[in-house]
Amino acid sequence: MPDRLTISIDAMGGDHGPSVTVPGVALAAKAYPGVRFLLHGDEAAINAELAKHSAAKAAVEVRHTEKSIAMDEKPAIAMRRGKGTSLWNAVEAIRDGEAAATVSAGNTGALMAISKLILRMAADLERPAIVASWPTMRGITAVLDVGANVESDAEQLVEFAIMGAAFHHAVHGSKRPTVGLLNVGSEEQKGHEEVREAHALLRDTTLDLDYRGFVEGNDIAKGSVDVIVTDGFTGNVTLKAAEGLARYFANELKRTFTSGPFAMLGALIASGALRKMRARLDPGAINGAPLLGLNGIVVKSHGGADAKGFASAIRVAIELARSDFTAEIDRNLKRLTAAKGETAPAGAVSAQSPP
Amino acid sequence: MPDRLTISIDAMGGDHGPSVTVPGVALAAKAYPGVRFLLHGDEAAINAELAKHSAAKAAVEVRHTEKSIAMDEKPAIAMRRGKGTSLWNAVEAIRDGEAAATVSAGNTGALMAISKLILRMAADLERPAIVASWPTMRGITAVLDVGANVESDAEQLVEFAIMGAAFHHAVHGSKRPTVGLLNVGSEEQKGHEEVREAHALLRDTTLDLDYRGFVEGNDIAKGSVDVIVTDGFTGNVTLKAAEGLARYFANELKRTFTSGPFAMLGALIASGALRKMRARLDPGAINGAPLLGLNGIVVKSHGGADAKGFASAIRVAIELARSDFTAEIDRNLKRLTAAKGETAPAGAVSAQSPP
Repeated sequence: MPDRLTISIDAMGGDHGPSVTVPGVALAAKAYPGVRFLLHGDEAAINAELAKHSAAKAAVEVRHTEKSIAMDEKPAIAMRRGKGTSLWNAVEAIRDGEAAATVSAGNTGALMAISKLILRMAADLERPAIVASWPTMRGITAVLDVGANVESDAEQLVEFAIMGAAFHHAVHGSKRPTVGLLNVGSEEQKGHEEVREAHALLRDTTLDLDYRGFVEGNDIAKGSVDVIVTDGFTGNVTLKAAEGLARYFANELKRTFTSGPFAMLGALIASGALRKMRARLDPGAINGAPLLGLNGIVVKSHGGADAKGFASAIRVAIELARSDFTAEIDRNLKRLTAAKGETAPAGAVSAQSPP
Repeated sequence: MPDRLTISIDAMGGDHGPSVTVPGVALAAKAYPGVRFLLHGDEAAINAELAKHSAAKAAVEVRHTEKSIAMDEKPAIAMRRGKGTSLWNAVEAIRDGEAAATVSAGNTGALMAISKLILRMAADLERPAIVASWPTMRGITAVLDVGANVESDAEQLVEFAIMGAAFHHAVHGSKRPTVGLLNVGSEEQKGHEEVREAHALLRDTTLDLDYRGFVEGNDIAKGSVDVIVTDGFTGNVTLKAAEGLARYFANELKRTFTSGPFAMLGALIASGALRKMRARLDPGAINGAPLLGLNGIVVKSHGGADAKGFASAIRVAIELARSDFTAEIDRNLKRLTAAKGETAPAGAVSAQSPP
C-alpha cells in the first residue's frame, strides 16, 4: 500500500457515470487534500470531465478500461463477464494493495458478487451485509443488515452489531456506540429464537459497544440507539417501506401546496424553511453504504446520487480507511469466538478433561 | 343470535373509557340506524355519557360490570383475572350468540389472549393475526400479520392472504382483491423457504383472490396491491417503523413551520390545505383492526382513538358482520386444504391404491 491514502473509484458506475463521479471526486479532493484517487474507466470520458476540474487533477490517476457493467445486468452474468470492467478493477485495486478502499455507484448485486469473489468474506455470511445511515430525530442511526442476507442466525446478528458499531464509530463519530436489537417488543421473552439467542450473546459478551437490549420499529425514527441490528429480510423490507413512505409524504406535501392559490402562496412564503426541511430529510446527504464482512473496504453509492452525494460516499470510504475500523471488528469478532468457546457444548469440554 | 344485528362493546376499554366509547357508539348508531349495541361496563359512568346522546339511547342496552382490565395489565394476568370484566363480557357475548361482533379499545395483549380463550382459533395460528389498514397513494392497503405471530410457515402465510382478502373485500369494497407477498425482490428465487413455498401455494391454488406474486417494502406506500401478506415479525416491525417515520415527518413539518416569521405566515395561509393533508394521512380515520383467525369477529380500536376513530372501528365490525366474510374465509381455507391433499406425499396416495 502506498504511503499516501489512495481511494479507488469505479468512475463508470451509477446512472450518470463520469459526469457525476468525476465532479464527486473533485469535491472530495478539495475536502481531503492528502488523498489520492485511482479512477477506473474510459479515459477519454473521464479526462473530458476532469478538464472542468483542474484543481483535482494532481490528486487523480486514471486507469483506462473500455469495459463496464450495465446497471441492470444480472449479478451472475456480471461476475462471469466482469473481469477488466471498471467495477472489477476498482475492487481488485484493494486486493492488490494499490488502494485502501473503493467506491462504486454501480449495480449493487454485481458489486456484492464481485467484491465477495475478489476479496472473500471475513465474516461467516452468505453475502456482504449492507448498513443504511438513517436520519432520525436525534442524529443518524445505522441500520443493518439491509442487504438481504435472508436468514440470519444469532451469531450473524452479533457480527452485524460489531460491524455496525465500528461503522458508526468511524463515520458518524460516536465514542461508544449504543446498539439495539430489533424485535416485536422489549421484554426478554419476545421474538423468535435467533433474536433471543443473539440478545443473550450481546448481553453476556464484553465487546467495544454499549448494548441496550431490544428495540422496536418506531425506535428507528426516534434515534433511540446509534446502531439497530436485524436480519437482512426484515432490514431490507423495513428500509424500502420507509423509503416508500418518505416518497409518499413528499408527494402529498407537493400536492397540498399546489392544491389552490392560498396553499401555493403559503408554500412560496415558506419555501426557505421547506427547502431546509427537505435537505434535513434527504438520504443523499448521508449517501455511502459500506459492504460489511469483506476483507477490504467497499462503499456503495446510490446509483442516482449527484456529485455531492457521490462525494459523501467517498467521505465514508476515507473515514473508514483512516480509522481503526477493520482492527476494531477483528478484535470484537475474536472476543465473540472466545465467548462462544466458554459456552461450548459439554462434550467439547469433557474432551479436555483428564480421562 | 337476535334478528337485529347486535354489536357488543367494551365500553371501559381504551385510554378514555366511556367518554370516548359512548360518543363513538352514538355516531355509529346514527350512521347505522338498524343496529343494536350492547355496552359492557360501569352502568353509572356509561349512563352519564349516554345522557348527552339521547338519540342513541334506543339502540343501546347497558350490561353492568364493575370490573375492567387496565391498559398496562400483563396479558397472562388479565386472562387469569379477566372473567367478568367489560372486555371479557364483550367477547363472551359473541360466543353466547348475543352479538355478531365485538369492539374493544382495550389492552391488545389481553384482548388477543381472552378472545383466543373464549372463542378458540379457527385457523392454525399461535395467536390471532392482526390486519392494519394503511393509507397509500392509491387507496387503502391491508397489511397482515402485524400482530406478532413471530414465525409464520408457508401455510399460515396463505391463510393470512385468504383472511386479508376477505377483510379488504368486506370493509374496503374491493371486488376481487389483489394480493402480494412481501419479499426482498420480485424474482421467483428470492427470499427464504417460507415465502417461496407460500408463493407456489398461492400461485397454484384457486382462491377468491387475485394473487400478483412478490412485492417489496416500497409497494406498501405505493398501494400496488390491496392486500400485503407477511409474517408477524416483519409486519410488526415494518408497521411500527412506518408509524415512527410518520411521527418524525409530522414533527419536522411543525418545526419547519415555526422556524421563522415567513414560515409561520406561509403555514397560516396554507393551513386549510395542511389540515386536509393531515386528515388524509391520519391513521385514526381508518381505525379498526380485526383479530383474524378466531371463531368470531373481534375488532381492536386504537387505545388513544377519539369518538370518531372509535366509530370507525365499529363500522369495521358492522361491515364484517353484514358481509360474507366468515363464509368466504371458510370456503377458501377448504380449497387450500384440498389443494394440499392433491400434493400429499406419495405414501398417502398409495395407501388408497388397490393392494
